[in-house]
Amino acid sequence: MNILAEIIGYVAGLCVAVCFLPQTLQTIKSKNVQDLSLVSYIIYCTGVACWVLYGLYLRSVQMVLFNLISLFFASAILIMIIKYKRKK
Amino acid sequence: MNILAEIIGYVAGLCVAVCFLPQTLQTIKSKNVQDLSLVSYIIYCTGVACWVLYGLYLRSVQMVLFNLISLFFASAILIMIIKYKRKK
Repeated sequence: MNILAEIIGYVAGLCVAVCFLPQTLQTIKSKNVQDLSLVSYIIYCTGVACWVLYGLYLRSVQMVLFNLISLFFASAILIMIIKYKRKK
Repeated sequence: MNILAEIIGYVAGLCVAVCFLPQTLQTIKSKNVQDLSLVSYIIYCTGVACWVLYGLYLRSVQMVLFNLISLFFASAILIMIIKYKRKK
């Protein structure tokens, strides 16, 4: 059970780390952000930034790394929402 | 530092739990899902479902609860993406 649990933990971290890569690519291509919620991405980025801090406190390399990757993609989407919404 | 770290952890969990509430409400209202990435939400839901399982393994009530809430909203968005994309 221990190894299975560790695998599940890694899959979870990896999924959350890369989940916004397809959204980032789609938004870079389309430049359409009308259907994306600005507030959702602000809250998400705040949460993930807090996870990074919490990971630093716990000295968990995986927690910091996975959440930094997630923060990178989510921030990219957030910036595009602000940038492209203003233009319309 | 310990209390501050615990507060940051709770803020992180709470943010990630409710982050997709605004997106859910916006999508329910607009029924527009064109700019939302189906693949992103599939990966996110998979990841958060794994966090729920991992939380059960760790017997962490907060981890299970926060991730269940997040899974609820993200699944709602995922279902709407599938439902409304098919109609167009």
